[in-house]
Amino acid sequence: MKDFIHAEFKNLQEYICNQLEYFDGKGKFQMDDWNREEGGGGRTNTIANGNIIEKGGVAFSAVHGSVTSEMKKQLGTAGDSFFATGVSIVLHPKSPYIPIIHMNVRYFELDNGTYWFGGGIDLTPHYVTPDRVAIFHLKLKEICDSFDLSFYQTFKNWADDYFFIGHRNETRGVGGIFFDHQSHENTSLPKEKILEFCLALGKAFPQLYHTQIELGKDELVTEQQKKWQLMRRGRYVEFNLVHDRGTKFGLVSGGRTESILLSMPPVANWEYDYKPEKESPEEFTLNQLKKGIDWISAGK
Amino acid sequence: MKDFIHAEFKNLQEYICNQLEYFDGKGKFQMDDWNREEGGGGRTNTIANGNIIEKGGVAFSAVHGSVTSEMKKQLGTAGDSFFATGVSIVLHPKSPYIPIIHMNVRYFELDNGTYWFGGGIDLTPHYVTPDRVAIFHLKLKEICDSFDLSFYQTFKNWADDYFFIGHRNETRGVGGIFFDHQSHENTSLPKEKILEFCLALGKAFPQLYHTQIELGKDELVTEQQKKWQLMRRGRYVEFNLVHDRGTKFGLVSGGRTESILLSMPPVANWEYDYKPEKESPEEFTLNQLKKGIDWISAGK
Repeated sequence: MKDFIHAEFKNLQEYICNQLEYFDGKGKFQMDDWNREEGGGGRTNTIANGNIIEKGGVAFSAVHGSVTSEMKKQLGTAGDSFFATGVSIVLHPKSPYIPIIHMNVRYFELDNGTYWFGGGIDLTPHYVTPDRVAIFHLKLKEICDSFDLSFYQTFKNWADDYFFIGHRNETRGVGGIFFDHQSHENTSLPKEKILEFCLALGKAFPQLYHTQIELGKDELVTEQQKKWQLMRRGRYVEFNLVHDRGTKFGLVSGGRTESILLSMPPVANWEYDYKPEKESPEEFTLNQLKKGIDWISAGK
Repeated sequence: MKDFIHAEFKNLQEYICNQLEYFDGKGKFQMDDWNREEGGGGRTNTIANGNIIEKGGVAFSAVHGSVTSEMKKQLGTAGDSFFATGVSIVLHPKSPYIPIIHMNVRYFELDNGTYWFGGGIDLTPHYVTPDRVAIFHLKLKEICDSFDLSFYQTFKNWADDYFFIGHRNETRGVGGIFFDHQSHENTSLPKEKILEFCLALGKAFPQLYHTQIELGKDELVTEQQKKWQLMRRGRYVEFNLVHDRGTKFGLVSGGRTESILLSMPPVANWEYDYKPEKESPEEFTLNQLKKGIDWISAGK
């Protein structure tokens, strides 16, 4: 089954890149194949200066090797060798009215039979528009519900907790879903169905983002709004480098830096103690960056 | 003596800000006084859009309170209450031919009599010019030597090890000096002399930077060089958010985020797998970002 998952994730990368190129209309993905000395490798597809996407990446990897002592500590489980495969995406759009989006699906197994899936999709609008966020969450709920009625709420809460910038007391964006360590042991689903769930999310991703693109792409942008976008990207950098477990683990465990830091924006700004104007859309956005908002109701 | 150190560090902040304003000729520091709920506070001085300095900060703080369990774990020492004071500086210049500079002096004590000083100055040129780096290191050596002939080499090696971006296999810049946990127990000097050393570094800082400003300020800058500068700033962000112990400890222990993240540049760029041209000044710079270079000899 390992090989099947490997192949499905690889196909998923190709499907998503084709769809995104089609929606962008100008940007083309550059493929970068790489090998990992200790076993396996990947293909990192990057896109830059598109009509819609300013900088983005869709990375696939499938690696294997011996379980290192650092991994043992992190995993808290036995096993001598591992296999891991995944697809990971971050897209930074040109327009501040199109959200940053992130998606990831991943599979991990040990030679002792332990395995799990993880993944998620989350949205980081530079400007929060509740009805657009509701459309995003509703679609995620629909996919979740077709597998297990408990998934959406569980994984939505998980995303709220995970994508949280503690030192700013803000969520990274408006969340989405996040899950980790899912196997037949802790979900209602057999292994094949969990894979199917991951693939369903991946297949839905391009259309999910296309909807957000269509809703935001025609809005005119002032310099002030562009500046705000670059500051929000600064927060994205802060989350990814300070808090994101995947990034931190990858960087300290000798992962491939350029693939891990695909998530970095093309340009980001910082300004000391910036406070948006009272009752501005920027202030409204900050006030929405909270855990526990029921976006589906909020957007109605 | 605690009050004396507090007062000396506060004066140091004022002295440095005055000198930097004078050298910049346009930028003015904005003072931001803040209090810490659990005890103490600080003054964060920031400067932006100067002739020379694009964004920078000179932060003073003096805080006290109970030793939390998180601190106990990090400190590995007993004590119920602590006092900590310091001055911390990062300056991002407009020109890529003027280096980013960082300085910090700090004092920490526990109610059980334990105390230590820490600090350092290090330089991050966007373009490395060995003779300019040599001038910087020579001045640091001169100050070190007037206190202890072993200081320069010990603290220079410490800086090489500390300011290292593991996931890039690069040093942050050309180093300088770094030291921590210095008390009469582990140096040749009595407490008063260690303080004097810290103050000597602080007092030397403006002139040290002024020299670098004068050497770089008249060089013409192309768009390509500006772009390279913004990518080097991206690396500065990576070091500070992923590796810098002070930043990480501050952010997770509830420090004042805006003061800790003073070190962030005004604008930073990322580009996937950027490789400088063969035999370009950018490639030369990358090749100099190594531990263990004897800059004083290299620059002759």
